[in-house]
Amino acid sequence: MLEVEIKARVSSLQDVEMRLFEMGASYLGEEEQRDVYFAHPCRDFAQSDEALRLRRGGGRVFLTYKGRRLEEVTKTREEVSVGVESFESAKLVLERLGFEKVAEVRKLRRSYRVGDYLVELDRVEGLGEFVEVEKKGEEYSPEELLDFLAAMGIERRAIERRSYLELLLGERDG
Amino acid sequence: MLEVEIKARVSSLQDVEMRLFEMGASYLGEEEQRDVYFAHPCRDFAQSDEALRLRRGGGRVFLTYKGRRLEEVTKTREEVSVGVESFESAKLVLERLGFEKVAEVRKLRRSYRVGDYLVELDRVEGLGEFVEVEKKGEEYSPEELLDFLAAMGIERRAIERRSYLELLLGERDG
Repeated sequence: MLEVEIKARVSSLQDVEMRLFEMGASYLGEEEQRDVYFAHPCRDFAQSDEALRLRRGGGRVFLTYKGRRLEEVTKTREEVSVGVESFESAKLVLERLGFEKVAEVRKLRRSYRVGDYLVELDRVEGLGEFVEVEKKGEEYSPEELLDFLAAMGIERRAIERRSYLELLLGERDG
Repeated sequence: MLEVEIKARVSSLQDVEMRLFEMGASYLGEEEQRDVYFAHPCRDFAQSDEALRLRRGGGRVFLTYKGRRLEEVTKTREEVSVGVESFESAKLVLERLGFEKVAEVRKLRRSYRVGDYLVELDRVEGLGEFVEVEKKGEEYSPEELLDFLAAMGIERRAIERRSYLELLLGERDG
């Protein structure tokens, strides 16, 4: 599954939410997500631009591998995910295999659907407010996503290519 | 969770099953299990005596880490397991992380409970017939397990300390 995703930092999620209502967006729900990221025992994920995440939210737990970003503006990357029955047991299996927790991202996420787009409004603990737009499994189309962001009143310079993990770890935009 | 387990090769599972009936064992069920074992991307599991297994059986899937054996006669070792929602997706996440499939063990397992013991009668494809006895999370008691094997008519020399994975890979007893 290829995930084409774009993210922007915004000053007011409420303004974006108003715009979404005007566009006829469907509200999908809200959930608190707790994401734990792990370092690989013998591969430098920062170098290889990969990530391994264990997410708890909305009563479910997912283990997700993310491949390196394939495009400059969006965060297009391969994503492979599997539902697991227990956060703690999955974490323990990973730890026994040598994976170490590097950071934890906590956020409140409200999700909307507009046509083929999934729009996520994130309040991220310690980082601020962001909008993520994605089209799952679709043809690679960064320009389309940029147009969609513009329709929501978000400028191109607001785009944040770094992941929440990178922002938390204080990496520079490059 | 510490798993204390002993395994023996038998010439006839039917004889053992008769004995179990006489001992008042409760039949728990039968399932076909397909176990895929993986090599770690940077640790030699054969050297470290660990294992990572993805098991499909009875409509469920489990990812299990097994620590090194802690005792000479039994196969006492740490075991950490987590249920996962999809065999194929879990396998793909592992492969992306650099784990490679090394072998597959297929067996038909019939399970019985006798008091505190779990008894498993295994017909393993390509390897033969085996009986496994375990006490989960219990105090370390290899002698107790040996006595129990004797009660089922199984001699001490029939004990097989190698795992099915090792037997399949043709490792020598040592």
